[in-house]
Amino acid sequence: MPLLRFDVIEGRSEEDLKRMLDAAHNAMVKAFDVPDSDRYQIVHQHKPNEMIIKDTGLGLTRSENVVVISVVSKSRTNEKKEALYRLLAENLETECGISPEDVMVNISENNDADWSFGKGEAQFLTGKL
Amino acid sequence: MPLLRFDVIEGRSEEDLKRMLDAAHNAMVKAFDVPDSDRYQIVHQHKPNEMIIKDTGLGLTRSENVVVISVVSKSRTNEKKEALYRLLAENLETECGISPEDVMVNISENNDADWSFGKGEAQFLTGKL
Amino acid sequence: MPLLRFDVIEGRSEEDLKRMLDAAHNAMVKAFDVPDSDRYQIVHQHKPNEMIIKDTGLGLTRSENVVVISVVSKSRTNEKKEALYRLLAENLETECGISPEDVMVNISENNDADWSFGKGEAQFLTGKL
Repeated sequence: MPLLRFDVIEGRSEEDLKRMLDAAHNAMVKAFDVPDSDRYQIVHQHKPNEMIIKDTGLGLTRSENVVVISVVSKSRTNEKKEALYRLLAENLETECGISPEDVMVNISENNDADWSFGKGEAQFLTGKL
Repeated sequence: MPLLRFDVIEGRSEEDLKRMLDAAHNAMVKAFDVPDSDRYQIVHQHKPNEMIIKDTGLGLTRSENVVVISVVSKSRTNEKKEALYRLLAENLETECGISPEDVMVNISENNDADWSFGKGEAQFLTGKL
Repeated sequence: MPLLRFDVIEGRSEEDLKRMLDAAHNAMVKAFDVPDSDRYQIVHQHKPNEMIIKDTGLGLTRSENVVVISVVSKSRTNEKKEALYRLLAENLETECGISPEDVMVNISENNDADWSFGKGEAQFLTGKL
């Protein structure tokens, strides 16, 4: 169920984008313990001037590789969220050469009734999920 | 008030997009019982590789017609949400030929203070709405 | 921390976009009392038919200058939110000539655990922020 939006600066090849999405999905599967088919990813590619991502004084160096990942998910524990952040940063570095300083994540939580995966049904309410 | 984002794969005509938005709005008006002028819709068109929308094992068949609708709304009952899912699927099939298996919806709730419709005012707080 | 998405109709110059983002950021810094480096802005530019922004009967006149600002933020008081709406409308009018009737804002709140600004860490949990 988690839905992930990736905001990135344009310029990556199709290959590189795929690798990024795969790496992020592997992090999600492991951190939130979801099935592999629980994959909902949307990419928004931007011109450089369409993204201004500073650092709140944390001393992070951002580059044109910066990735902002916005997650919508049912409630998860802090431990799982921290695992997600750690694994996203690790995987994106290992698989895609993206610096952990370029990976920003934010999560918005919702509830069982807030998802319909298809067929006009709320699968978390009907018991299908 | 509900704000709806539609993420779709590029390729629809202007005509088809309009029909999709109209069909979704009719579902919203009926399900959430809002006035016709309560219409806030934003479309994001994507290349096919920018959307990976699986099915959490539900056995849904996704096509290039897939539509992900992300709703931001004040709190609504489960009944209204379920009505929204059902009517969105129905209308998009009837009006646009989109399979109900291609319609995914998610909702994020917020509150009265979280909306300004214009003029720098929070209309749900000032009593104008 | 607040992350702001700006949905606008394409056609603004780079200069104009920058002025819009600067004006909005100044409003944010003042209203939410955040440091200047607390700046996270993403722009989505749309074709005119990709945005339908009505007015819930409020009698607002929308133009092609319409800006929808979607904010994700930790909890803020109603007073701060109202200040944000007022300052956004003021600044965008003064700095960019955008009518206050063209400025729509919505906020979604989340929590400390829901942010990682980089390095795979949840900086509001680790005490770095």
